Amino acid sequence: MNFSSKLLEQAVEAFASLPGIGKKSALRLVLHLVNKENIDVKNFAQALLTLKENIRECNTCHNLSDQELCTICEDRHRKQEMVCVVESIRDVMAIENTGQYRGVYHVLGGVIKPIDGIGPDQLNIDSLIRRIDQKQVKEIVMAISPTIEGETTTFYISKQLKDKNINISTIARGVAFGGELQYADELTLGRSIVARTPYNISE
Amino acid sequence: MNFSSKLLEQAVEAFASLPGIGKKSALRLVLHLVNKENIDVKNFAQALLTLKENIRECNTCHNLSDQELCTICEDRHRKQEMVCVVESIRDVMAIENTGQYRGVYHVLGGVIKPIDGIGPDQLNIDSLIRRIDQKQVKEIVMAISPTIEGETTTFYISKQLKDKNINISTIARGVAFGGELQYADELTLGRSIVARTPYNISE
Repeated sequence: MNFSSKLLEQAVEAFASLPGIGKKSALRLVLHLVNKENIDVKNFAQALLTLKENIRECNTCHNLSDQELCTICEDRHRKQEMVCVVESIRDVMAIENTGQYRGVYHVLGGVIKPIDGIGPDQLNIDSLIRRIDQKQVKEIVMAISPTIEGETTTFYISKQLKDKNINISTIARGVAFGGELQYADELTLGRSIVARTPYNISE
Repeated sequence: MNFSSKLLEQAVEAFASLPGIGKKSALRLVLHLVNKENIDVKNFAQALLTLKENIRECNTCHNLSDQELCTICEDRHRKQEMVCVVESIRDVMAIENTGQYRGVYHVLGGVIKPIDGIGPDQLNIDSLIRRIDQKQVKEIVMAISPTIEGETTTFYISKQLKDKNINISTIARGVAFGGELQYADELTLGRSIVARTPYNISE
């Protein structure tokens, strides 16, 4: 791309370095900002700088947080004895958006993936075990993606927790709502038949 | 979307205010920046601030520029007597990318569109006429989109320049390279037959 301005080129390259944004999209975004008020662009840049300088991991659950404890861990109305184990903070958000969960979380920071050199030591598993020992955790809900690596991670953690006196569950797997049976994969459909649940008319 | 961090929410909202970026994409971009080095995020923010503070319109052609004159107007190897009139700086870039044009530009800043309240006075038409009077412009190439508004603008400007001793041309319209005739619209195909060009075997 030919730029008549070095400054424009630098800004476009900055945007184009973000994932999923090509040069043409980057140019569109930069031209949008050029046409905005000065104060809007300052606020935009400031929001990023403030975020980067002040954001940290929650001491307890490794979720992103502004303080030592994230708002979820701090919330005394939530069941602190129920911990949902997830891969990433995006999963925390996805579950929070459902509005169906009132416990707290523990973010692993990934799944066990030997091919990428990620073993149990690279994940926040030790801190999960310490947390279970120190705080009165009664139930662990494993909400990890049902991939091979995810299942391995769920299995590994469950094994570590075997001797502790807590309930371990995994989120239900089965055909998705709104999905058509004929398009469900065989493994999911097979499991959903094996793990069929009683049907209550009153529900 | 539920955020456990106010800072994260602000940064996501900043990105989501850009055109074509929704909340989910914004979150992906922000998490990417959170995982980057501090210096990278600073450079990103700084590129935007520097751009916004220092970018200006070229005094001559209204292209975006770092100095009083843009690099195209400053380039003495380009034909300063040949001016290509375009709607926006994106069109300048598109034409520059072809590598086929060695003249200079004049950016109108839009087209005449009475329905949006954009008349000739809102566009850089006066400065084009002054430029033609003051500098020895010999040829004007009208490169404006072939829409109704674009054609109106081309017509209006051509009429203003009628009495001046300059050649006015428009870029060629016709079926696009790589396009199939059966899918070309009737107007384009009809015009391309009327405006047929001699076929030289030596070409």
